[in-house]
Amino acid sequence: MSGIPRLSHLLETSVYVRDLDRAQAFYQDVFGFELFLRDERMAGLAIPGASILLLFLRGASNAPTPTDGGGDIPAHDGGGSVHLCFAIPLGELAAWEAHLDAKAITAESRITWPRGGVSLYVRDPDDSLVELATPGLWPSW
Amino acid sequence: MSGIPRLSHLLETSVYVRDLDRAQAFYQDVFGFELFLRDERMAGLAIPGASILLLFLRGASNAPTPTDGGGDIPAHDGGGSVHLCFAIPLGELAAWEAHLDAKAITAESRITWPRGGVSLYVRDPDDSLVELATPGLWPSW
Repeated sequence: MSGIPRLSHLLETSVYVRDLDRAQAFYQDVFGFELFLRDERMAGLAIPGASILLLFLRGASNAPTPTDGGGDIPAHDGGGSVHLCFAIPLGELAAWEAHLDAKAITAESRITWPRGGVSLYVRDPDDSLVELATPGLWPSW
Repeated sequence: MSGIPRLSHLLETSVYVRDLDRAQAFYQDVFGFELFLRDERMAGLAIPGASILLLFLRGASNAPTPTDGGGDIPAHDGGGSVHLCFAIPLGELAAWEAHLDAKAITAESRITWPRGGVSLYVRDPDDSLVELATPGLWPSW
């Protein structure tokens, strides 16, 4: 769109959790995301493709957080059973299904979309809805 | 990590909003995201880099949603003032600051990080905390 500066990509998404250790273990163990930051307030996990999953302890960020960078991170907080989705290669779908089985994680739903993509839906420990989607879901994926 | 199938990238993040028209207008007008899906329950906006921002009307997805694909989308719902972040090129930072000014949007905070990156924080119409971050924020960005 004219007049709007360039934007690179979706860098961070957040999930607000009741137990940081439990959520961190789930995303490391099931998805293999690398932990690069952890304190009492939050955990930062690297997602392939130069994006980040932030896990925040519920209620721990609802006041500004001072930084060393000359400004505060403004307040935020969330909850509920939110939806997020990770893209997987088409050729990895069977491996993901076997991997979830091996972890004793039952997909709550499996959808084949009109464009040919397949989505698997699982729950994280805080009941957020995590989707794994092959190409063929959206116009751009 | 050994034994974990490959994952491509972060495909979707979600924001749960009180007014779909208002939220859609904000993300189209300020960020230029292309709308590719809209109904009474949700809006789908394409983010550069093959990712998707999903706007859900609060409370409208808290029961399974039937699809044409032979399965239901499981229930989900969220709220609060959540955090999400878009990566911007370093060379576009000044243009983003001018663009926000032109839209009469005041950054709630501006942080220069130890790695040299700069973050701008703005609020969406539902008080979610939207960050724009140049390279130099995380080990992987």
